[in-house]
Amino acid sequence: MAETSFLHPDRLFPISSTQRDICRDLYNGVKDFPIISPHGHTDPRWFAGNANFSNPTELFIIPDHYVLRMLYSQGVSMEDLGLKPKDGGDYETDPRKVWKTFARYYYLFAGTPSRIWWDHVLSEVFGIKTPLSETSADAIYDVIDAALASDAFKPRALLDKFNIALIATTEGALDDLSHHRAMVGSGYEDRVITTFRPDDVIDASKPEFAVNLKKLGELTDCNTQDWSGYLDALRIRRQYFREAGRATATDHGHPTAQTADLSAVECQTLLSLCLSGEATEADCELFRAQMLTEMAGMSVEDGMVMQIHPGSYRNHNTKLYERFGADKGADIPTAIHYTEALQPLLAKHGNDPRLKVILFTLDESNYARELATLAGHYPCLKLGPPWWFHDSPNGMMRFRDQVTETAGFYNTAGFNDDTRAFLSIPARHDVARRMDCVYLSQLVCEHKITLDEAKRILVDLTYNLARDAYNLNLPRKSVQGQSAQGQSAQEKSA
Amino acid sequence: MAETSFLHPDRLFPISSTQRDICRDLYNGVKDFPIISPHGHTDPRWFAGNANFSNPTELFIIPDHYVLRMLYSQGVSMEDLGLKPKDGGDYETDPRKVWKTFARYYYLFAGTPSRIWWDHVLSEVFGIKTPLSETSADAIYDVIDAALASDAFKPRALLDKFNIALIATTEGALDDLSHHRAMVGSGYEDRVITTFRPDDVIDASKPEFAVNLKKLGELTDCNTQDWSGYLDALRIRRQYFREAGRATATDHGHPTAQTADLSAVECQTLLSLCLSGEATEADCELFRAQMLTEMAGMSVEDGMVMQIHPGSYRNHNTKLYERFGADKGADIPTAIHYTEALQPLLAKHGNDPRLKVILFTLDESNYARELATLAGHYPCLKLGPPWWFHDSPNGMMRFRDQVTETAGFYNTAGFNDDTRAFLSIPARHDVARRMDCVYLSQLVCEHKITLDEAKRILVDLTYNLARDAYNLNLPRKSVQGQSAQGQSAQEKSA
Amino acid sequence: MAETSFLHPDRLFPISSTQRDICRDLYNGVKDFPIISPHGHTDPRWFAGNANFSNPTELFIIPDHYVLRMLYSQGVSMEDLGLKPKDGGDYETDPRKVWKTFARYYYLFAGTPSRIWWDHVLSEVFGIKTPLSETSADAIYDVIDAALASDAFKPRALLDKFNIALIATTEGALDDLSHHRAMVGSGYEDRVITTFRPDDVIDASKPEFAVNLKKLGELTDCNTQDWSGYLDALRIRRQYFREAGRATATDHGHPTAQTADLSAVECQTLLSLCLSGEATEADCELFRAQMLTEMAGMSVEDGMVMQIHPGSYRNHNTKLYERFGADKGADIPTAIHYTEALQPLLAKHGNDPRLKVILFTLDESNYARELATLAGHYPCLKLGPPWWFHDSPNGMMRFRDQVTETAGFYNTAGFNDDTRAFLSIPARHDVARRMDCVYLSQLVCEHKITLDEAKRILVDLTYNLARDAYNLNLPRKSVQGQSAQGQSAQEKSA
Repeated sequence: MAETSFLHPDRLFPISSTQRDICRDLYNGVKDFPIISPHGHTDPRWFAGNANFSNPTELFIIPDHYVLRMLYSQGVSMEDLGLKPKDGGDYETDPRKVWKTFARYYYLFAGTPSRIWWDHVLSEVFGIKTPLSETSADAIYDVIDAALASDAFKPRALLDKFNIALIATTEGALDDLSHHRAMVGSGYEDRVITTFRPDDVIDASKPEFAVNLKKLGELTDCNTQDWSGYLDALRIRRQYFREAGRATATDHGHPTAQTADLSAVECQTLLSLCLSGEATEADCELFRAQMLTEMAGMSVEDGMVMQIHPGSYRNHNTKLYERFGADKGADIPTAIHYTEALQPLLAKHGNDPRLKVILFTLDESNYARELATLAGHYPCLKLGPPWWFHDSPNGMMRFRDQVTETAGFYNTAGFNDDTRAFLSIPARHDVARRMDCVYLSQLVCEHKITLDEAKRILVDLTYNLARDAYNLNLPRKSVQGQSAQGQSAQEKSA
Repeated sequence: MAETSFLHPDRLFPISSTQRDICRDLYNGVKDFPIISPHGHTDPRWFAGNANFSNPTELFIIPDHYVLRMLYSQGVSMEDLGLKPKDGGDYETDPRKVWKTFARYYYLFAGTPSRIWWDHVLSEVFGIKTPLSETSADAIYDVIDAALASDAFKPRALLDKFNIALIATTEGALDDLSHHRAMVGSGYEDRVITTFRPDDVIDASKPEFAVNLKKLGELTDCNTQDWSGYLDALRIRRQYFREAGRATATDHGHPTAQTADLSAVECQTLLSLCLSGEATEADCELFRAQMLTEMAGMSVEDGMVMQIHPGSYRNHNTKLYERFGADKGADIPTAIHYTEALQPLLAKHGNDPRLKVILFTLDESNYARELATLAGHYPCLKLGPPWWFHDSPNGMMRFRDQVTETAGFYNTAGFNDDTRAFLSIPARHDVARRMDCVYLSQLVCEHKITLDEAKRILVDLTYNLARDAYNLNLPRKSVQGQSAQGQSAQEKSA
Repeated sequence: MAETSFLHPDRLFPISSTQRDICRDLYNGVKDFPIISPHGHTDPRWFAGNANFSNPTELFIIPDHYVLRMLYSQGVSMEDLGLKPKDGGDYETDPRKVWKTFARYYYLFAGTPSRIWWDHVLSEVFGIKTPLSETSADAIYDVIDAALASDAFKPRALLDKFNIALIATTEGALDDLSHHRAMVGSGYEDRVITTFRPDDVIDASKPEFAVNLKKLGELTDCNTQDWSGYLDALRIRRQYFREAGRATATDHGHPTAQTADLSAVECQTLLSLCLSGEATEADCELFRAQMLTEMAGMSVEDGMVMQIHPGSYRNHNTKLYERFGADKGADIPTAIHYTEALQPLLAKHGNDPRLKVILFTLDESNYARELATLAGHYPCLKLGPPWWFHDSPNGMMRFRDQVTETAGFYNTAGFNDDTRAFLSIPARHDVARRMDCVYLSQLVCEHKITLDEAKRILVDLTYNLARDAYNLNLPRKSVQGQSAQGQSAQEKSA
């Protein structure tokens, strides 16, 4: 095996040496900053129980929808990737064989962010000196498998190794937060917090909606068939998430960004219809729309930051969904809109200084047209980073290119990794930091901003904007010897 | 204070020295060209009365929707920016205090075109040598305030200083054009012309529509409740704008680009419905659609160039609109379409050599898909420059990138500043010229065109295309010693 | 005349010398590869009859919709371009005069791909040393005219000269394929194949639909008024196209990508309605939608590759269409969608390993949002290259930029020229190869992939992906001394 890393220190940096020198200078200022991961899908059980991870395939391949989708697109079956079909059919149970299938097709990821993340994990987390290929697959499997069994690779040790200041998991509204509660007293409880994700008790198109509302009623002692009882139940669960899971934010994964502002009477009628099982898809859409506005209203009351992640057609491949379930790489974006969709919510709460809403998109045609223009006006709105398929070097450049000229940097919310792939978190933040340096170094070279300004903005993009956007109890960072910028007017005056 | 300008002479230019040298060479050929400003919103009163401007805040901040929206988005209140609320509440009346608030938040504009424009105005118009900051705010206020009181900064002196060959203002169809009439004999009347903007008498969704049509009838001695009388009234006002305001163009700011081609009977029914106050939003949309086609028909008759600026959701922030009125930075773009929307108009008039229609968009997804393909075919269509939020360096590059390969350069209409911020006009044209040089120098470096071709095209982009598109009575420009190109077939044969 | 070509050897290559060196190295590895042209619109009569082409204007200008649209957009009449109006009016019949009109306006193409293709044809195919202009027009006409009369410029000689390994023409479902049949025994029959394009017997919005179905019934001895008879007739014609024209693919040019999955009873009702002449546009859309799903089902049966080219508003300029017919540059793209539209087809056949569907778009907003995400998951889907207006250097860069990070390289289908302009085929493939080198050299410079990987991927992009996507009976290519990659799982295991 080779002696040095196969990662180039200048990876992702620009080709021009003038710009690259500035880019490196900027990067060196933030590359070792603590990681803030304010939105994601890691499993709280890991950090509560702190048990070793099982094996490379269980940890890395089976839950990685980017990997599943790419190999499936090239004719590799889910069974060969180790996924157990619900119909009881055969599937590969030898994790090493699955790993070797993955290695054989690793060339497919050329030009994709998965390749960058994987290479980073192999090289920087496991110290592997040879790129992954069919030839090296076995030896690499052994290295990772051994490492995962060691104390140094237990979840909490990795939190420390990765320098993660804070990570937020995401739980459904009915979750008991037992893992978050179990962490109290461990010293990790303030570093691992939850997020309130109430889709299951808001989206009436889900078959289990009525059952979920029954459970919600039982958990909260509220009559969830009654509109005001239902809202009270949600308030109680939000409070529970703040107290038992230190949640500072909610998250909403609706098919669209539609909002509504109906009367209480209309709301009761709609709720009853949804509970009856007779609601059409249009009724469900209207109910979700109303509930986004209600959630914004509760955020005004309780200070929780609202995240909206709209526009994914979930489980598009119906046969695959039936056999293997959700999150297998078959969620596909659709075209959506924000300007008209968000107007009812914004008309009601958009000027309230207590509200923060972070908007995400899978439809980049909204970046310049609707998202930058909305966030560049409404005080409650911030733009989340490029999401999911767009969490990639070119995706990040398109975001900055199309957003910055209208919304600036200070209406954005820093980086989210939004991942369940815990070991890739440093890789993902490293990509984001590098691409911010690429963008800022270009502004410097084009004489749009000075190098000093770039350094200050970079500190904010890397750290302060995420901290501020999510109301996190963490110290702010500043460029040494320079005054901080980037505080919002409210905070400055506070 | 420093001795030299804080503007870099190579600002916005490319990083590659090979390309930058070509870019500079191109830029030097056009940087001192006279400015043609064929569409904008400066106040004709300035040029008629030629009074001094009041103070920096009144001139620069209160009317600048880019500034208002950015500071509002970060929690600064409209009151603190000196805007008087309609409900009689308090607001900041000291212009210097407003100026200092602006300076304190000036860092928010990093990466936005406002920053480029402001820096240009401060440095090039007022000769200020230090960038704006909280520290320098007071001194800079004093410099500007003193300058504005001098003869050299009276509106007509600035027209001369800025080398503005022609500027078009925009007035509603009911305007008496008193300021344009007052300029006759001043020597400025051919440099300051008006534009006919009939939205108020065409858009039946406006509450004052019926009242406006009554006024229109009184002004023209026509029965505007009658379809043909209404059209005649519009013809008379168009003629008045040409005669009293030297207008060469009309402008139409509809929510969409929808057009229609109804029978006269249907039109009368629709007009009556609109006047009754019973029209739905769909009725109003159909009426606007029909009226775009009527306006095109009148342009065929009278030779006025038709501008269509669609796709803005006006006054999206309803509470802000109620308290502070329109144009405060709360107009938000929506997704719109052109191919199907314009078909009725184009089917009727699209091949008429007497018609010119200049299309604008806030929805960049149309650049390559619909606008370049339409303008690259129909003889009547030209594409206006990147508009509003897209009037920015990256916005211009996206426009050229997505438009040029299909529509070429000669189906575009040169640059518009479209601004009410009079003192920023040189800055805006300078940005456009620089970005045209960036784009052309790239084509030269990629061996797509020769340097000589680039020079000829640049002269057309900077000057001739605007002159030709708007039928302006100005001499054409050519590259010294080379024959001019870029005349349309009609003009060459004329 | 000058001695050397006016084409720069580094045209389209990047400005950075570091990147350009890598780009040149890559390009040299594939520039002389045989051309695979798996989708296009050349006339099979040329290759069957092998007669000389008539004159430069007949061959180059009259059939080139890019040329017609650009000159028409600038006020040149179709008549002056040699097109005969259906109303019997005058038109220019002297091909040399038309050529000179074209030359006079050649400057309009600066910055467009037409300019690149034309320059390539003039320089590389005809050996002309001077760029086209009004001055050089006559001499260049003479050179081309003389060449076209020579044996070296007969269609089959050009196939050899251009090193075209395979070219597919496109014929309607009712075509007798007489030219393809006539080629049997010539040695060219496996190099010139047809494609089955059944729009005329599927799109019920065409006035001749009922007549076409009658003809289809006569050709196949099927009752095409009966749903199953109609499907059988299509099966028979598909078989005929495979046998008589060596077709490996079908092609579908629908207004949208909508698909449906109706019951047989519903299908019979809809077919009867469409044949009655009473069908609305919505009925016709549903019928087309159902037929895409039927065509996919037949592809599963017979192995033909399905191409979908949606989203063009055909004959948008109705007056021009009435006077001059179709394909005169007046087809305009519209916004369309794929995620929801394709779901019925994909739910039925999307996981079948026997199916291949190649998707194209004129609406680039789908690249990252819908197309890359769909093709990056479904095993049946591949993405065709940038199409029509986007078959251009910048169009190709936008495609790679927006597609690669999600779909990788191996869910794309190589290059199509999709042209009726036979002599421009080498130019178009050269542009595609150059732009692939530009993209790959950038990935190398950014340390995303190694140079060796880039070389292997480039061979696949240039040759193997088209071969594999279209099931062509041609040998695979590999980088010397390196193992091939890019075979799909099915093929590897086959």
